[in-house]
Amino acid sequence: MYTVRIGEPDPRFGNMLLEQFGGANGELAAAMQYSIQGINCEDPARKDLLMDIGTEELSHLEVIGTLARMHLNPSKTNRAGAEADPLIAIAGGGGVALVNSMGDAWTADYLKITGELDVDLRSNIAAEARAKIVYERLLNFCDDPGTEDALQFLMTREITHMKAFTLALESLGKDPFTIGEIPPTPGVVDQYFNDSTGEGDDGERDATGPWNQGSGWKMVDSPAFQELARKRF
Amino acid sequence: MYTVRIGEPDPRFGNMLLEQFGGANGELAAAMQYSIQGINCEDPARKDLLMDIGTEELSHLEVIGTLARMHLNPSKTNRAGAEADPLIAIAGGGGVALVNSMGDAWTADYLKITGELDVDLRSNIAAEARAKIVYERLLNFCDDPGTEDALQFLMTREITHMKAFTLALESLGKDPFTIGEIPPTPGVVDQYFNDSTGEGDDGERDATGPWNQGSGWKMVDSPAFQELARKRF
Amino acid sequence: MYTVRIGEPDPRFGNMLLEQFGGANGELAAAMQYSIQGINCEDPARKDLLMDIGTEELSHLEVIGTLARMHLNPSKTNRAGAEADPLIAIAGGGGVALVNSMGDAWTADYLKITGELDVDLRSNIAAEARAKIVYERLLNFCDDPGTEDALQFLMTREITHMKAFTLALESLGKDPFTIGEIPPTPGVVDQYFNDSTGEGDDGERDATGPWNQGSGWKMVDSPAFQELARKRF
Amino acid sequence: MYTVRIGEPDPRFGNMLLEQFGGANGELAAAMQYSIQGINCEDPARKDLLMDIGTEELSHLEVIGTLARMHLNPSKTNRAGAEADPLIAIAGGGGVALVNSMGDAWTADYLKITGELDVDLRSNIAAEARAKIVYERLLNFCDDPGTEDALQFLMTREITHMKAFTLALESLGKDPFTIGEIPPTPGVVDQYFNDSTGEGDDGERDATGPWNQGSGWKMVDSPAFQELARKRF
Amino acid sequence: MYTVRIGEPDPRFGNMLLEQFGGANGELAAAMQYSIQGINCEDPARKDLLMDIGTEELSHLEVIGTLARMHLNPSKTNRAGAEADPLIAIAGGGGVALVNSMGDAWTADYLKITGELDVDLRSNIAAEARAKIVYERLLNFCDDPGTEDALQFLMTREITHMKAFTLALESLGKDPFTIGEIPPTPGVVDQYFNDSTGEGDDGERDATGPWNQGSGWKMVDSPAFQELARKRF
Amino acid sequence: MYTVRIGEPDPRFGNMLLEQFGGANGELAAAMQYSIQGINCEDPARKDLLMDIGTEELSHLEVIGTLARMHLNPSKTNRAGAEADPLIAIAGGGGVALVNSMGDAWTADYLKITGELDVDLRSNIAAEARAKIVYERLLNFCDDPGTEDALQFLMTREITHMKAFTLALESLGKDPFTIGEIPPTPGVVDQYFNDSTGEGDDGERDATGPWNQGSGWKMVDSPAFQELARKRF
Repeated sequence: MYTVRIGEPDPRFGNMLLEQFGGANGELAAAMQYSIQGINCEDPARKDLLMDIGTEELSHLEVIGTLARMHLNPSKTNRAGAEADPLIAIAGGGGVALVNSMGDAWTADYLKITGELDVDLRSNIAAEARAKIVYERLLNFCDDPGTEDALQFLMTREITHMKAFTLALESLGKDPFTIGEIPPTPGVVDQYFNDSTGEGDDGERDATGPWNQGSGWKMVDSPAFQELARKRF
Repeated sequence: MYTVRIGEPDPRFGNMLLEQFGGANGELAAAMQYSIQGINCEDPARKDLLMDIGTEELSHLEVIGTLARMHLNPSKTNRAGAEADPLIAIAGGGGVALVNSMGDAWTADYLKITGELDVDLRSNIAAEARAKIVYERLLNFCDDPGTEDALQFLMTREITHMKAFTLALESLGKDPFTIGEIPPTPGVVDQYFNDSTGEGDDGERDATGPWNQGSGWKMVDSPAFQELARKRF
Repeated sequence: MYTVRIGEPDPRFGNMLLEQFGGANGELAAAMQYSIQGINCEDPARKDLLMDIGTEELSHLEVIGTLARMHLNPSKTNRAGAEADPLIAIAGGGGVALVNSMGDAWTADYLKITGELDVDLRSNIAAEARAKIVYERLLNFCDDPGTEDALQFLMTREITHMKAFTLALESLGKDPFTIGEIPPTPGVVDQYFNDSTGEGDDGERDATGPWNQGSGWKMVDSPAFQELARKRF
Repeated sequence: MYTVRIGEPDPRFGNMLLEQFGGANGELAAAMQYSIQGINCEDPARKDLLMDIGTEELSHLEVIGTLARMHLNPSKTNRAGAEADPLIAIAGGGGVALVNSMGDAWTADYLKITGELDVDLRSNIAAEARAKIVYERLLNFCDDPGTEDALQFLMTREITHMKAFTLALESLGKDPFTIGEIPPTPGVVDQYFNDSTGEGDDGERDATGPWNQGSGWKMVDSPAFQELARKRF
Repeated sequence: MYTVRIGEPDPRFGNMLLEQFGGANGELAAAMQYSIQGINCEDPARKDLLMDIGTEELSHLEVIGTLARMHLNPSKTNRAGAEADPLIAIAGGGGVALVNSMGDAWTADYLKITGELDVDLRSNIAAEARAKIVYERLLNFCDDPGTEDALQFLMTREITHMKAFTLALESLGKDPFTIGEIPPTPGVVDQYFNDSTGEGDDGERDATGPWNQGSGWKMVDSPAFQELARKRF
Repeated sequence: MYTVRIGEPDPRFGNMLLEQFGGANGELAAAMQYSIQGINCEDPARKDLLMDIGTEELSHLEVIGTLARMHLNPSKTNRAGAEADPLIAIAGGGGVALVNSMGDAWTADYLKITGELDVDLRSNIAAEARAKIVYERLLNFCDDPGTEDALQFLMTREITHMKAFTLALESLGKDPFTIGEIPPTPGVVDQYFNDSTGEGDDGERDATGPWNQGSGWKMVDSPAFQELARKRF
């Protein structure tokens, strides 16, 4: 296992680290999402992939937990430390708990598991991208070299996993917009509904781009508004 | 709005429909995920995209809610119907509630919102793929033509959105494995850790594929096991 | 305490009864809402009222719990009974748990406590009305005389409490639309926004009534749509 | 849509604003409660009312979300800002999430929906009173003119809605203490149980008022205590 | 890993098995409780014990997950199977999810972790006793030999762990009623408060036993009632 | 009831006190766990014990709630106080809510209730040990004499209850490792699995003690690793 060393403990930063221990995009969420997808998976090769990465994430849970505990430890006896996270201080005695930086208990509602392999791989690619950016933000608030080393290592592995899941998805050889067996309704599938109406903030003005123009797209002003306008004005 | 008509109400199927009303991959989850990403988005063109699709999903919430209510209505007075979903029958009087098919209250823990545009778009692509497969499974358990029409329409739109989000992501012109600003550690990023060990089930045997072989991959037997094996055997 | 007697146990009905034991409108929710409002209340007379009714609801928790347990008891050994509520059967051995009819753990998110006495009394009037209708629906699915007696008693008391809270609110002598200290903005407060647009279902057609017509009301077509219509059509 | 402008961002105040974005009495709770009641409602005129106000609350969700985001924005890069709400800073990159001021994910457990129109309207009157007092408290902690304008507008509208729901309830012409169809048991319904016993704090002394005296009330010392006293003393 | 084989799949029993996969007393709860206690533990020998058993429970998670999946698999295509657990069928495609038998998402609120070693060991002894009785109840509803073998194995291991935790607690050599450092108040600690008053059900009559009689116990009729009786009667 | 007096209110300490009001090991959790076990209990004498202590804990809920409210009161008008717990300040007007120190709503997921008396008593012994250590930690952060008195009283009573539950368990006269009716598998029950492998932190080195050595224990290196080592090295 990765050996963790830190300099001066920083309870408020330790509290932030809990995002990757017991938070929505953290290591337990990753470990459980991939391992349970693996249990459900009927494709032997990709099942092994899901189990490999699920197991690795579980070992990361221990790394980030150990790191967070080192930073949170003073909250047991130090009042300012305790105010950083009273739940950790009072209920946990300065030890880590399976919660995020705001004390919310980890929940399986974070997980995305459908039993449809290519769908699950897409959920995993997105999950790795989220974990990467969260580690980056932690790094941006950190200047302890030992802590930075651990975070840089964990962040790097998310990119590794993102690559592996992307390649596994591509290796299935499926059309990128075919999901499951039932085809979408032709015609309806190519309509872009221009539905949002506000203008209060920059950017809610109607915009065009490859996502609603060209390549077969048909722009449709939201039917509800058309009807409304017809009636009222 | 899409006008919903059904034949014979089927409370147990109505209960299943709640997955797409108040469930993890349902219409409120989609509407909230995209709209809140939109509120946070600083790119005007893609903010409009997020708001357009967020608004459309909200209109779908009304469609699926109306559909579920029609099927659940008899549970108010019919004991067998009430047993299909006692929460809907007793607490809701046969009306819909913001819960899934097992009565779990909708929670924002379902949402994936990071404030990093390309990461959010990946989460959305995965979300649309999940919503599509859930609608397909509902269709597979349904034989009422009016209900099928509504589900086919809603399912089709998920593919439309999946396309739009994919094209919006591509239009950003970013490298697919570059997330945020801090680069991963060279060397470490190319190692595939062969971590899972069980063999009880088919498929946990070590497997290779493009996700761990070729293209710069370096296979590494899990360091923990190497160390363990060195010590014990 | 009210003594509960039942005839033949009915596990599926026992499961429905859990709505009033560990459900959103059940006896614990009532007991906690009023007692905690009472702890926070600085008006001695109405604090006593809140504590009186809070304490009574707590005694009802024991009545409904005993009743539910009698009906759920067979689920410990009887497979059909166990299928009515596997959580009660497998985790609880046929005993009650603080959950609703769908197995959701009771949560303080059900409670409405603001520390503003007249606001809290309004929340309590509404809570009693909800509890009354839930007991009525349980009675409609019940034909065991002993169970009916208990439910009729509990239902009756909700009306008693609803009266007491209404009279306590009136006795404060406040204007019905004055809440707190800061007045609403004149003019803006009298505008009714005609915002909903759908017509797919009966009743979403624009309607008028005392809630938007006469008595100083000024009907306003939703500003967003006006602006939209101006721009597009 | 209401256009929001603020002066100096204040992340700790932005965090407080989240109460009305993703909190128990916030705009999403209001929007969902009324819209779903509307989907279930079989009275066309009041269905339109529920949909009108539900839709307006949804537009307020965007106003309060935009306002909160402006105040929370600095938490992405500023450590003190990040400590105000580490979940927003680390997981959300300074953008809003559907959580309250303590980071709790929004949950449908906040909603009160029974499918019984007059009961639902009572829940809505109480909900508006709660939302009003919460906005008032936010105003009391605020001295930025742009923010105050937006909060004053949103607060005012809650009074408007409270009026509309009250008038809609009155227009049903029902007796205020008749809920549903089954009448309460005469005699039992008029008894006030004097149940609370503590004296430790002012106000738990037995008190009388219109809620337990006169108008047919019959005061009853809690039966459990009477029996206890008979046995022991 | 333990290899699982079953005869005829039984989706309703598969649903019950989820109690030990994603339920309150299940394998993930055990694995996380012990492993996180281990991360926090400063006693090297007992830290190893916590990690050993935590790791074993994690391997059991895979066993029970594989077993549940075999039983739930038909729910993907079979309507009766799907009605046993619509969440598994519709959202999960017949694969397992981290939920209990009523579809509640696993939550870290199930865990008991205090960072005080002897307290944690007591929580673990109780946790193992609970897991044992849950496996026994599952066995009582099961007649498939392969499934019985797996459940008997898993149930047996809970007794093993219960023994190990008990011996580890005893090996600390602490007085059984000394917790932490601050002693209880002499006199107050020996008083047994006779507080419950109801008589509606057998067993609420006042009872005596070693828990309130002899060995220094002093029986005290609840002070609140004494005072009340003095005043009122 | 215990009369609470405090000196200077300290909102941040009041926030910590919420752990014992609406937290996982707090007074409501204790009251509900024992009372509901009591409702389910078929042994009249120990049912009375469970009800006695359940009722006492409920009276403690009022004590700790009153104490917390006194400390939190200034958060209604004082900005620094409000930042200690914005949920209490903004949504609660400075009054207590049924939440813990991080604002998490109380949930019945905290409770351990199995309907098996000796198992429940073990859960209660552990619960009392946890409550004791939490009160001790609160005392360690407190220097207000009135608050200390109340906490010392409440802490003392947890030891009283721990004793009573222990003596009640012993009075059942059951073998300490016999739970339920089905015996564990001989042989398997005596094996200690040496499963954890890491060495990164002190204490994960393999350790021996009475929990895996002597008294019939048979040490087994984790089967998975044995198999793995056989194959790979």
